[in-house]
Amino acid sequence: MSTYTAINLVKRPSGPIGPDLFEVVEKTVPELAEGQFLVKQTHMSLDPAMLGWMSPSTDSYIPPVELGTVMRSSGFGEVVASRHSGFSEGDHVMGRFGWQQMALSDGAGVNKLDPTLPAEMVLSVFALPGLTATKGLYDIGKPQAGETLVVSGAAGSVGSIVGQLAKADGLTVVGVVGSDEKADWIVRELGFDGAVNYKTDDLGAQLDALVPDGIDLYFENTGGPIQHRVFERMNAHGRIMVCGMIADYTAREPQPGPSWLNIIRKRLTIQGYTMPDHLHQVPELLAKLTPYVQRGQIKYRAHVLEGLESAMTGLNLFFSGENKGKLIVKL
Amino acid sequence: MSTYTAINLVKRPSGPIGPDLFEVVEKTVPELAEGQFLVKQTHMSLDPAMLGWMSPSTDSYIPPVELGTVMRSSGFGEVVASRHSGFSEGDHVMGRFGWQQMALSDGAGVNKLDPTLPAEMVLSVFALPGLTATKGLYDIGKPQAGETLVVSGAAGSVGSIVGQLAKADGLTVVGVVGSDEKADWIVRELGFDGAVNYKTDDLGAQLDALVPDGIDLYFENTGGPIQHRVFERMNAHGRIMVCGMIADYTAREPQPGPSWLNIIRKRLTIQGYTMPDHLHQVPELLAKLTPYVQRGQIKYRAHVLEGLESAMTGLNLFFSGENKGKLIVKL
Repeated sequence: MSTYTAINLVKRPSGPIGPDLFEVVEKTVPELAEGQFLVKQTHMSLDPAMLGWMSPSTDSYIPPVELGTVMRSSGFGEVVASRHSGFSEGDHVMGRFGWQQMALSDGAGVNKLDPTLPAEMVLSVFALPGLTATKGLYDIGKPQAGETLVVSGAAGSVGSIVGQLAKADGLTVVGVVGSDEKADWIVRELGFDGAVNYKTDDLGAQLDALVPDGIDLYFENTGGPIQHRVFERMNAHGRIMVCGMIADYTAREPQPGPSWLNIIRKRLTIQGYTMPDHLHQVPELLAKLTPYVQRGQIKYRAHVLEGLESAMTGLNLFFSGENKGKLIVKL
Repeated sequence: MSTYTAINLVKRPSGPIGPDLFEVVEKTVPELAEGQFLVKQTHMSLDPAMLGWMSPSTDSYIPPVELGTVMRSSGFGEVVASRHSGFSEGDHVMGRFGWQQMALSDGAGVNKLDPTLPAEMVLSVFALPGLTATKGLYDIGKPQAGETLVVSGAAGSVGSIVGQLAKADGLTVVGVVGSDEKADWIVRELGFDGAVNYKTDDLGAQLDALVPDGIDLYFENTGGPIQHRVFERMNAHGRIMVCGMIADYTAREPQPGPSWLNIIRKRLTIQGYTMPDHLHQVPELLAKLTPYVQRGQIKYRAHVLEGLESAMTGLNLFFSGENKGKLIVKL
């Protein structure tokens, strides 16, 4: 292969994500310099955080993708040529390779993987979703056995891991989802204590029934009205991890949050976080997460799209909630 | 004195605080049992938290004052009779003595004081205001020299101490107040870097001018619109201490808070707290606070009302913002 396909971001989104925001380009496979290697990417991860990376910068810490450059993403692949002492042909690797079939690397931010781990498990559990779940639940949530946890986006890649970790630790776990199929999956397959379909159920009444003594931990993945119904039911000294606000990313006007009166009445802690701030913690987070996976306590499901170009519309599945499990693009 | 005056709470507030909520009663000075002592209270502290104590319970941690019993408050007094081995006649003491001239105690929650400390300083700095300021600023805010702090209710008993501690630690400090006189006081007397009068200034424009690089710490004492203007200007990794929401305590409907989108975009931490949860920390908090007082870095002013019955309308000064400094009732 002397050329490969890449997708550049050329326009910032103001509505649904589609091909008009991108250009598909053919690039020439580069010559390797000393200390470089070439990765043939086989699987790309699609994550809600990418919606933020496409938007104009809102702070100075996570720069947006520059227009005219390859769209940023994490992925899984195999080293196909190397002049780097640490990476050899045939190595399985994970890294921020972007929306392209081939990636040139000097090893920065690239991790070698146990070759027995399937690509889908790596991207679904050990990559951004598992790290994000582990960071938020343990460093912010500080869960205690016997407490109650509500997680929104509970069938999603992060939410499903948060709920399973909390269940394994002895909490009562209720997930908020957007379909009966997802509700069924998190209760029957993942072992959640309950599920609420926010599209059809009376959310407040269902929460009252499922967690009658209130909510100690809330893992916020979605924003929107769920936030308000949960907030009203927080117990004293409750902790809220704000991980994602998918419902608000494309709203014209930011939606108001709950009154802060409850923050003082209940002495709540609310903390927003994103993994790029905490990459130095990756080894310790993986060390925390791995035993749960080894004990079979973390199930996952991948929603696999076929072909590089499917990424361009695939991100919309986060908005519609139609993705079933971790979104992965197979190249 | 064989009788003394006390004030009971008999009705819960639904508007301004006035004599209709209370009954003034004459009580007989009790005989002391072994292990008890009698305090002649000379100064009572009025604090915004008392408005919460008068209201129906909103959680199970800080019970409201029961109707028909003495209104709860902290105060300063002198031991006038004792059958307690730890307290002697003439001791100066601070404790939760309630709205009454005399209080019977077994010593629980009562602290003996250095007799050289004036009552007004004790109630203004070393009691609830100073403890609350120290707890919030250091345990939640974790201030770093060079950061910016905005505090609302900045001329109040807690806010004025928060700002002075932060100034002493090398932060840039801006106070939000409700009068030009208060603005003048916090800048000229307390050494704040700037002040905004939210009643007359364009709050957002003033903040942009005074803290052009954004706000790292916000100490929330008041609620209301100030919260929104500050929130929009928070820097990444900002911390918000929610200590009081006086503007919302008597609102018919809780006012919406800011959109949570900023919580994740800026990875903010927001934490509500009240001192009654942290009484076990009082010795360490006093140890932290005292050196600042000894170095002359904490100035205060007391707003003294005369006579027990002045407490019944005095609490309204919190709503109107007319109090100038720590509210104290001199008996």
